[in-house]
Amino acid sequence: MDKLEQQMQFLLELDKQKEIERQTYLASGKRKEKDAEHAWHLAVMAFLLADYANEKIDVLKTVKMVLLHDVVEIDAGDTYAYDTTGNQTKRFREEKAADRIYGMLPEEQKQECRALWEEFERGETPEAKFANTLDKVQPVLLNDASGGISWREHGIEKSQIMERNAHTQEGSGALWEYAHRLIEENAAKGNIKE
Amino acid sequence: MDKLEQQMQFLLELDKQKEIERQTYLASGKRKEKDAEHAWHLAVMAFLLADYANEKIDVLKTVKMVLLHDVVEIDAGDTYAYDTTGNQTKRFREEKAADRIYGMLPEEQKQECRALWEEFERGETPEAKFANTLDKVQPVLLNDASGGISWREHGIEKSQIMERNAHTQEGSGALWEYAHRLIEENAAKGNIKE
Repeated sequence: MDKLEQQMQFLLELDKQKEIERQTYLASGKRKEKDAEHAWHLAVMAFLLADYANEKIDVLKTVKMVLLHDVVEIDAGDTYAYDTTGNQTKRFREEKAADRIYGMLPEEQKQECRALWEEFERGETPEAKFANTLDKVQPVLLNDASGGISWREHGIEKSQIMERNAHTQEGSGALWEYAHRLIEENAAKGNIKE
Repeated sequence: MDKLEQQMQFLLELDKQKEIERQTYLASGKRKEKDAEHAWHLAVMAFLLADYANEKIDVLKTVKMVLLHDVVEIDAGDTYAYDTTGNQTKRFREEKAADRIYGMLPEEQKQECRALWEEFERGETPEAKFANTLDKVQPVLLNDASGGISWREHGIEKSQIMERNAHTQEGSGALWEYAHRLIEENAAKGNIKE
């Protein structure tokens, strides 16, 4: 298969991300968000909010990282943030998925995209820290806008959210401060359990 | 309203793009694609396929351009490529939408994003030409993968597709060649009328 054909097959494989459902609802509350929509939203945030990163970031690298950060869910599925059992097997399922899906790309892009995903998962570089912050802040924005539907449906407690967001301020103090205020407001309204 | 609050309100407004339906079906054929999903797909294509651009492109600029190229449809709606009446009023409806929606952003980003959209619409720079090529090639990929559902539903003729794609090769000869082959194959299969 020639290089362009490999890339086109990968792009068609990615189309499945449009059908993978997350637990977060759209701002309108009408239905749950899909992986591809979430990745698009994070990519827009990555360039519009780049100035709020704690450390200087390479914006294009961050955008690529968030555009493809959930590709593994095509095989591994979306593991809900507060699903303890699912999160125990998540890493193994996602490694296998990364092998297969990134493996569809020509060698150089396979290496690049796989490395970006590994970097996102480790969360150590300025770009990975900021990408992880966006990945945590965006669902808070949507949850707040939808009146906390997802939090209420799952009976989420503030301590669970705070634990999950232990590292969110590392990518951007300003964005975490914004999200934290929304979390407190929703706790006060009863959308999040104290 | 402070700058971050303006940006967050813009990002929430953008969420509506997840609910705007296009005429193209997903590769699986299960349902029609939404604007946000389409923009995400183009953004991934912009960086994975950048080497096929006829002229050297600024990849980050192209990615930003495609991520936000359909924002005006929040107010103006999706105008189907082959809707002659709709396309007569499209420009007017979209200008008004651009004023309102980009107007939500802080001044500097409002100028940048609005200018990127105008540049995309004019299709004269290397980035705008390539972005327009992606915008035309991606639906062909999906239409082909879904067995030509959208083409058949609308009884599209090959001459209409060729007319609409009069400039597609300007962004990338290689990608147009790929899409053109798929169009010919689908005409041969009867998914597109000769």
